[in-house]
Amino acid sequence: RVVNDAVFMKRALELAKKGAGRVSPNPLVGSVIVKNGKIIGEGYHQYFGGKHAEVNAIENASEPVEGATLYCNLEPCCHTIPEKKTPPCTLRIIRENIARVVIANRDPNPYVNGNGVRMLQDHGIELKEGVLAREAALLNEKYFKFTRSGLPFVHLKIAQSLDGRIATATGNSRWITDRAARSRVHRMRSEYDAVMIGANTVQKDNPSLTTRLVEGRTPRRVLLDDQLIIPDGSRLISDEFKELTIIFTVQSPTHPRVMELLNRGILVITVNADSEGKVDLREVLQHLAEMNIASLIVEGGGELFTGFVREKLFDKISLFIAPILIGDGINSIGNLGISLISEAIRLEEVNIEILGKQVLIEGYRDMQSIIPPEIQVEPKYEKA
Amino acid sequence: RVVNDAVFMKRALELAKKGAGRVSPNPLVGSVIVKNGKIIGEGYHQYFGGKHAEVNAIENASEPVEGATLYCNLEPCCHTIPEKKTPPCTLRIIRENIARVVIANRDPNPYVNGNGVRMLQDHGIELKEGVLAREAALLNEKYFKFTRSGLPFVHLKIAQSLDGRIATATGNSRWITDRAARSRVHRMRSEYDAVMIGANTVQKDNPSLTTRLVEGRTPRRVLLDDQLIIPDGSRLISDEFKELTIIFTVQSPTHPRVMELLNRGILVITVNADSEGKVDLREVLQHLAEMNIASLIVEGGGELFTGFVREKLFDKISLFIAPILIGDGINSIGNLGISLISEAIRLEEVNIEILGKQVLIEGYRDMQSIIPPEIQVEPKYEKA
Repeated sequence: RVVNDAVFMKRALELAKKGAGRVSPNPLVGSVIVKNGKIIGEGYHQYFGGKHAEVNAIENASEPVEGATLYCNLEPCCHTIPEKKTPPCTLRIIRENIARVVIANRDPNPYVNGNGVRMLQDHGIELKEGVLAREAALLNEKYFKFTRSGLPFVHLKIAQSLDGRIATATGNSRWITDRAARSRVHRMRSEYDAVMIGANTVQKDNPSLTTRLVEGRTPRRVLLDDQLIIPDGSRLISDEFKELTIIFTVQSPTHPRVMELLNRGILVITVNADSEGKVDLREVLQHLAEMNIASLIVEGGGELFTGFVREKLFDKISLFIAPILIGDGINSIGNLGISLISEAIRLEEVNIEILGKQVLIEGYRDMQSIIPPEIQVEPKYEKA
Repeated sequence: RVVNDAVFMKRALELAKKGAGRVSPNPLVGSVIVKNGKIIGEGYHQYFGGKHAEVNAIENASEPVEGATLYCNLEPCCHTIPEKKTPPCTLRIIRENIARVVIANRDPNPYVNGNGVRMLQDHGIELKEGVLAREAALLNEKYFKFTRSGLPFVHLKIAQSLDGRIATATGNSRWITDRAARSRVHRMRSEYDAVMIGANTVQKDNPSLTTRLVEGRTPRRVLLDDQLIIPDGSRLISDEFKELTIIFTVQSPTHPRVMELLNRGILVITVNADSEGKVDLREVLQHLAEMNIASLIVEGGGELFTGFVREKLFDKISLFIAPILIGDGINSIGNLGISLISEAIRLEEVNIEILGKQVLIEGYRDMQSIIPPEIQVEPKYEKA
């Protein structure tokens, strides 16, 4: 039964993934109902506000679910609060006389976090937890980070040369990576609530930050623009998605440029300046979290990457490294104040993939800050 | 027979590799003798000055080789010149009444280069060439480059962070890579005639540049030291291998420091300064070639890497990239005068390997300058 539990949980995870890009800030959840060793119902959380995975699985079942085992990667919800859009799944599971529930992770949401488990057990339902816990938690890394810390999951996406340059000295960066890498980036974007760039990148590249190379939602577009230097013709404030753009600045809300942008329908938010006169990154993340933006992909330039790394405000990094040498140019990462190799930022859970002409190297800053420490995460590469 | 030819040539290549690190500046050559579909003799070129592969295969044969097919990755030699250490293999093949000879590559040495093929054909021996030509030529990349251009094969070995730093701003670099990567580097060293570093690297790291982590010969150790700043206690000029050290400088041969080093038994060579007052790299390579150094591995620092890349004097590059971020520090590559991505140096025949905690990315600057253009080399990654 141990082996079977993993097989059915695997299927629940596959189902959960289908909601990617549509359920945030909710988690990805899939559910499978098994009776006599056979799957009789499947479901997943399809879109934000829609029915939960467990309910979909129950309602899709091809025969009565009484006495069956329900697999679900996340602990079933058990709470009702005003802003919640669906009734508690635990009640439904109890009412349907499900005999056994198998989950991968407890829900880090403090309204649930063990309460769902206890409620089911109190009603005589056999409960097993921790099946494929690591894989399931990684699948919901954005949800875990956001729910546990109250800040968005921050993912840095860097496209660079072998020698660590994201552009030549004159700012030319098109294209360091090929279409295979750019398609992947568009897919990544579609699974994030927001994509962020800095003002230099707008000036140099005038990107649209859409997901046109793939099917999928275009995320909120966040611009950090301390001095509001964004040119009038920039796509971010003039294209069809301009209402998705949010600009953070240190300029006063009464600054004429702020008024102009607001009149165009662009959201402009004033935050405090950090010691260098730039927008305070932590404050920006807090604002985004309040807007229910649970995940953010940062696409440059070097100043933003450096800020997020130096302030330890990033969670994951993906480097697309093209097999080219540029020499002196714009560095992907600037001053981190590191003087010894032993102080270097050492990525965890490193994954390496070949993608078109590039190698894609991905890793995490600190797994413990994303996934609850009780979930064992075996690093492929040990932290030194 | 086409398939069998490739199978037996593959075996010849395996045998050839056994000579790695011991035959330079000669090529790696292996030979197999086949009669009635069965290998009856094998041989390879074992050490510089030793018997050639074909002769070893003939002499190792378990039955008479008359009427047999001889496989050899390189065209058999056919010449006699004063400095040559062995008699021509073509004569032996003819005398032994070998019926058929299959080779991978013609020998780029102008004394041979087709003459061996013609001599065998003129004596009625059936000759087939081009079997596994690409693989065989890559195996002898050092020999092909040296023989065709008169300059050593130059291989840059860079150990860096994800963000392209080979050391922190204070020069700390131990260790960016782990033991798996360093063992590989020692093995690479043992297959090169010389290893080169710059004066800054001697001052910062005081390396011994040996092959102590593997079995194998320690190569000549070449130091570029424009101003002769090498400290007296440096391993390169005081350890047990000090007679393997060669120092290039722009200081006059009568400079007192030159005399001191010569008195210690260290070879010091004065070359012209380039426009920046540094030793002229091309002149250094010409000196090394005259000393029969056919291959050179360059291990840093950034100034040397930059010089070899900018002057287009490198052939191959191996980057060991560790999953760490250092931020501002010493860049692997400095100014190349590149202002557009389209001008970037785009590596050919890129190979990506995971090695310990590192990813190893290898590629060539310009395959055509190494391997004769008539040998088709299919790039895995197309040149843009």
